[in-house]
Amino acid sequence: MFTPVKNTKVYEQVIEQIKGMITSGQLKKGDKLPPERELVERLQVSRTSVREALRALQIIGLIDCRQGGGNYIKEDFEENLIEPLSLMFVLQNSRNREILELRKVLEVETATQAAQRITPEQASALQEIVQKMSQDPSEEENVALDKAFHYIIAQASGNNLVMSILLAVSSLMDSFIKEAREAIILKDENKKVLLEHHEKICAAITGRDPKRAAQVMTDHMTLIIRHMDLN
Amino acid sequence: MFTPVKNTKVYEQVIEQIKGMITSGQLKKGDKLPPERELVERLQVSRTSVREALRALQIIGLIDCRQGGGNYIKEDFEENLIEPLSLMFVLQNSRNREILELRKVLEVETATQAAQRITPEQASALQEIVQKMSQDPSEEENVALDKAFHYIIAQASGNNLVMSILLAVSSLMDSFIKEAREAIILKDENKKVLLEHHEKICAAITGRDPKRAAQVMTDHMTLIIRHMDLN
Repeated sequence: MFTPVKNTKVYEQVIEQIKGMITSGQLKKGDKLPPERELVERLQVSRTSVREALRALQIIGLIDCRQGGGNYIKEDFEENLIEPLSLMFVLQNSRNREILELRKVLEVETATQAAQRITPEQASALQEIVQKMSQDPSEEENVALDKAFHYIIAQASGNNLVMSILLAVSSLMDSFIKEAREAIILKDENKKVLLEHHEKICAAITGRDPKRAAQVMTDHMTLIIRHMDLN
Repeated sequence: MFTPVKNTKVYEQVIEQIKGMITSGQLKKGDKLPPERELVERLQVSRTSVREALRALQIIGLIDCRQGGGNYIKEDFEENLIEPLSLMFVLQNSRNREILELRKVLEVETATQAAQRITPEQASALQEIVQKMSQDPSEEENVALDKAFHYIIAQASGNNLVMSILLAVSSLMDSFIKEAREAIILKDENKKVLLEHHEKICAAITGRDPKRAAQVMTDHMTLIIRHMDLN
């Protein structure tokens, strides 16, 4: 008859209060949370409830419990999307095609936006990456350059929400479609055409041509999807 | 010197094991988890660690603790994206524009895919909704019909991953851009043009014309974004 509902509610209320402080702007990325005993006093709840709440927030990746003291709001909160996304992916019996389609639409969108919003610094960085790609880098370097290329475009889009989801989807792809990125990049016959794609995308974005950026990114993702389905 | 690292690791390991059972397909949506004492035995950990792990999984929304007994893998796991997305949104100081841009690109994508994959049943359901929209429904009904309209298109896209993110983004929109959906739908001068949009989208999708579906959905979302920015 007597389930610990009340207690469950207490720690959930503590979580809600902390989330509320974030939503209202009282707590920001990297901020330190008040110490446990202060939370106990301010929220008028038991130390156990506060601890349960803090542990839960740690598990969902919202706070970081640093050794030696203190709980901090995490800086790299984007990572939190990866876990629920990947569990959802598995639980829904999703297919690889679904990740690829999602990545395509987000990449095309960020390319379009990047062409409208890229800063001179980001444009230089993008050109530098493509420059390095053209200098016959090692396989390992090439994979890293490819990731950096797509990352800068996502950043340049100026849409943090789209960028975060794209990054989460990218790592979902890396973990579910293993070797995919590498397999494509490493094939000798792809090297030339991929370099051309990257050059065209870079030119369209730094040339601030959103339509062209969307088109060349679409071509690029279509090639990648075709290769992945064949593998 | 001695922080409870070991204990933290134990419950985290329990979580990893349960996630592993999901990833390997041993546990599916709606499945009941083994009882606590069985987990204690099988995983060779303390009852406390098992309880901590179960509570954590409950908090991240992966399992449902039903009153009277048993922990079940949640059916409606999509909702789990809403929470991290909305906290991320706040922590990143994102702007409403970002949600709108993300929703636009996902809606256009689902419309395109729906035009390729819609089933006859889904097509009938979509036509029925538009039919009801044309019969001067009450304001409340109209808001519900609008949601159902976009939901069926998302379903018909056949991409669960895109659908889940779109649904999460939709509720993010509902909570951060309050009254937005209602404000647009309820304005008398919008009624006619919105009905036309819905009719055109429905015709393109049920007529299996992906390009046209993308175009009319783009027009629709552009109108919505324009109205929201003005409000």
